[in-house]
Amino acid sequence: MELSAYMHEKRIIIENTLKDIFVSFVSTPGVLRDAMEYMVFSNGKRIRPILTIAAYEAKGKSGDEVLPIACAIEMIHTYSLIHDDLPSIDNDDIRRGRPTCHKVFGDAVAILAGDALLTEAFRILADSRFTYRTNPRLLKQSIFEIASAAGADGMVGGQVVDVLYDGKEGSKNILHYIHMHKTTALIRASVRVGAIMAGAKTRELKHFTKYGECIGLAFQIMDDILDAEGDEELVGKKLKKDTGKQTYIKHYGIAASKIKLEQLIEEAVKSIDFLGENSNILKEIAQFIGNRSM
Amino acid sequence: MELSAYMHEKRIIIENTLKDIFVSFVSTPGVLRDAMEYMVFSNGKRIRPILTIAAYEAKGKSGDEVLPIACAIEMIHTYSLIHDDLPSIDNDDIRRGRPTCHKVFGDAVAILAGDALLTEAFRILADSRFTYRTNPRLLKQSIFEIASAAGADGMVGGQVVDVLYDGKEGSKNILHYIHMHKTTALIRASVRVGAIMAGAKTRELKHFTKYGECIGLAFQIMDDILDAEGDEELVGKKLKKDTGKQTYIKHYGIAASKIKLEQLIEEAVKSIDFLGENSNILKEIAQFIGNRSM
Repeated sequence: MELSAYMHEKRIIIENTLKDIFVSFVSTPGVLRDAMEYMVFSNGKRIRPILTIAAYEAKGKSGDEVLPIACAIEMIHTYSLIHDDLPSIDNDDIRRGRPTCHKVFGDAVAILAGDALLTEAFRILADSRFTYRTNPRLLKQSIFEIASAAGADGMVGGQVVDVLYDGKEGSKNILHYIHMHKTTALIRASVRVGAIMAGAKTRELKHFTKYGECIGLAFQIMDDILDAEGDEELVGKKLKKDTGKQTYIKHYGIAASKIKLEQLIEEAVKSIDFLGENSNILKEIAQFIGNRSM
Repeated sequence: MELSAYMHEKRIIIENTLKDIFVSFVSTPGVLRDAMEYMVFSNGKRIRPILTIAAYEAKGKSGDEVLPIACAIEMIHTYSLIHDDLPSIDNDDIRRGRPTCHKVFGDAVAILAGDALLTEAFRILADSRFTYRTNPRLLKQSIFEIASAAGADGMVGGQVVDVLYDGKEGSKNILHYIHMHKTTALIRASVRVGAIMAGAKTRELKHFTKYGECIGLAFQIMDDILDAEGDEELVGKKLKKDTGKQTYIKHYGIAASKIKLEQLIEEAVKSIDFLGENSNILKEIAQFIGNRSM
């Protein structure tokens, strides 16, 4: 199957599961639900949940056991976008071609919609209506992976350093901390959780981890490149605004960033050779991340 | 044992566990860690984790299996205070007698410190270094209880309605929704989780639920009473500022609020009669909630 068809198919499945998840909110105030839905269904690429499913399938498993877990990761990613866009953080007005959540619903509801998405992600993971088929031991491991990647030693930690060094000189070390934590941690976890749920052994998991780490960092470098020379219409947000931010372009220049990106994709592809033919989709996703224009 | 000695003893155990939890952060940026610690160790009453432990012990269990779970609930409570105090939500400058988190660390770090505490609470619940002794099935049930109580149909939902009706006429129904969701849901869950972890049966759990619901609502009514006629020094925050808020005082008057409070404590005490002598501490906690001055 071609990658674009694969991703299209998975996106539909993911969005249907997200819709099922929203049905499970029974007494949520209307405006809160609207704010959550506004960002969850805003034409996201669904890269993270697709990676979870693809890693799961690459281990020869199929079926929808992994779907609620993949969607929980997407909910956490979505909450992080809502909070990142807030006036006191990145102060962004446009995201995915639409006004950001706080622009539509106000700062208070945007903060609380982010809080709710983060909390509900963990509810879904532990909700037997969604995860009744899941081995509780593997589920616990997945919750641990996801929370670790999203928390103080992961995404939130990276976001704090990103904010602190906005407009400052910074360094390659600071840049590395930000990129590895803010973006890479959750992408790596998306891959790892798919593999864990498919019963990957420690040695295999090492390779999945390497793959996730390479494409995670590549994803962020591509973001930096797109900010510098992307098409605002396609990317769907205001570009060339990262001038004060710690980016790959700032610390390495555009040419070296593109070379690093290529090397990472190559390394990602190599690291999953052990999967043989089953690695095809994951390899194509790596190439997609290295070539994306949005 | 007298209640004050019991609570003192449990507070020390809870704070030691929270310190252990902070040791488990390995690459958290200093300022993020500082902001989290600032609020977690700010002389909180620790009512919720004490309730979890007391419910667990009331079922005849002892030991520290339940401690990390109790602390996770306290971390979620703490995150909710940090976010509630933000300028775009309640805009409070003083909490527990000290400047609020955003006053000390700025809005961005305060938002992210709240996000980190919420995420790390779920990490602790799934972290085998803390919950290796815990039956994964019961753990899953506890995670579900806690996330449900804290999420869109629970605490965050209540907070949204509280914000939306600030300065509006409102109604007794609106007030009931806010109090049941914003405050009662997590207090009820604190009790339920203690009972669940101790293996309470469905019928027993019903009584624990009733107890948690009564003291949760009583706790919030007492908050409303303290706001109207409490001692600012003792309460540790600015009072008489809830004039625009939906409070029991606004909709029922102070005399009826005090009668309702007493009825709730009485109901709470009755609902756990089935525990016999083991109910003593929980009954005293109910009385404490009905008489507190801070």
